Amino acid sequence: MAQQERAVRTREAILLAAAQVFDEVGYEAAKVSEILTRSGVTKGALYFHFESKEQLARGVLHENARAVPPVPPQQLKLQEAVDRGMVLAYRMGHDPLLRGSVRLALERPVHDTLDRRVPFEAWTRESQALLEEARLAGELQPHVDTAELANLVVGAFAGIQLMSQAMCDRQDLCERAAVLYRVLMASVAMPGVLVQLDVAADRGARVHAIMDDYVRTP
Amino acid sequence: MAQQERAVRTREAILLAAAQVFDEVGYEAAKVSEILTRSGVTKGALYFHFESKEQLARGVLHENARAVPPVPPQQLKLQEAVDRGMVLAYRMGHDPLLRGSVRLALERPVHDTLDRRVPFEAWTRESQALLEEARLAGELQPHVDTAELANLVVGAFAGIQLMSQAMCDRQDLCERAAVLYRVLMASVAMPGVLVQLDVAADRGARVHAIMDDYVRTP
Repeated sequence: MAQQERAVRTREAILLAAAQVFDEVGYEAAKVSEILTRSGVTKGALYFHFESKEQLARGVLHENARAVPPVPPQQLKLQEAVDRGMVLAYRMGHDPLLRGSVRLALERPVHDTLDRRVPFEAWTRESQALLEEARLAGELQPHVDTAELANLVVGAFAGIQLMSQAMCDRQDLCERAAVLYRVLMASVAMPGVLVQLDVAADRGARVHAIMDDYVRTP
Repeated sequence: MAQQERAVRTREAILLAAAQVFDEVGYEAAKVSEILTRSGVTKGALYFHFESKEQLARGVLHENARAVPPVPPQQLKLQEAVDRGMVLAYRMGHDPLLRGSVRLALERPVHDTLDRRVPFEAWTRESQALLEEARLAGELQPHVDTAELANLVVGAFAGIQLMSQAMCDRQDLCERAAVLYRVLMASVAMPGVLVQLDVAADRGARVHAIMDDYVRTP
C-alpha cells in the first residue's frame, strides 16, 4: 500500500517537473535530462513510469482535465460555468501542470505525433455538460446549441489566454476572461438569469479561495 | 524604376517563402537555407533584404496586417467588422503569408526576442477603428466599450483558429468564425442592426469573391 502510494507520488513529481519544462521551452526543446533533474527521482523511476519524452507529454496532456477540481455548486448552473472559466483564468498564473499542458495543447507539432486534441476535447465535453444542465434548468435562451457554445467557449478562452500571455505574461487574463464571459452570457442567458450572474474580474480568485477551504474541511 | 519594382518583387518572394517555411515548421526549426531555396532568389539578394532569420520573421509579422485588404464598404459598419473576420477565416485556408505570420504570432518564444505583440496590436487597432465607426453610427448598444470588444474579438479569433487547426486542420474555421460572430453580435449590436447582419458560414467566401472582382476592375 505504502509502495503504491509512493509510486503515485513519484509519478506526480515527474509530471509536475515535465509540465514545468514544457511550459518554459515547449515540447521540441524540452530535455528529459532536465525533467529528471527537476523531479528529483531516479532515472530508473522516471523510465519505469514514462518511456520517452512523448509519453511524458501525453501524461501532462491527459492530466490537464484533472488539473482544476470542480467548482462549488451554485444555484445557477451558468454561474458554475462562469466560475469554471474564471478559476481557470486565475489558476493559469499559478498552476504549473495547467500551464504546461496548455502550452503543449496550443503548440503546433514539429516532429512529434502528439495528439493535441485531447485537452480541447476534454474541456469541450466538460463545458458542454455544464451548459446542458443550465439548459435543462431553463437558464439558456431557447436558440442556444450547447455543443456549438462549448466549442466557442473553449476556443475563445484558449485565444484570450494566448493573447494575454503575448501582451503581458498573463497579467490581465482575469480581466480578459471576465469580458469574454460577460459578452457570451449576454448573448445566451435568459435575462432573469443574466442579472444574477457574478462575472467580475476577481470572481476566479474568490471562488478559488472558497475551494481551498472546501478541500481543507471535508 | 524597373529596378525598384524588381527589388519590391524580390522582397515579396522572399517574405512569401519565409512565411511558408515558418508556417510549416515554426520559427525555431526554420532554416534560412530552405527559405532561400523556395524563394528562388540569390543568396546575395536575400541577405541584401534580410540579414538574419529574425529579420525575416519580423518582416513576416509586420506584413501580416497588410495580408488582407479592406473589405468592400457596407451600409452597416458592423457588417464590415463581421466581413473582415469572415474573410480572414476563409483566407486562412489559402494565404501562406497570413498562415505564416499567424503561426509566428501565436508561438511562444524559445531562444528568440521576436516581438509577437505586433500582429495582435495591429489587428486590435484595426478592429477597434471599425467598431468605433459602428458606435458613431449608432449600431452598438450603449454599454459597449470598443477597446475591450476589439481585444476580445482578436483574442477569441486567434483561439478558435488554433482549435480548428488542432482538431481538423482548419476545415471548420468558417463555421467556428460564424458562431463567434453570431454570439458576439447578439451581445453588442442594436436589435434593429442585428436582424440585418449576414453572419452565415459562407459569408467569407462570398465577400472574398466580390473583393477579387473589385481588385480586378478598379
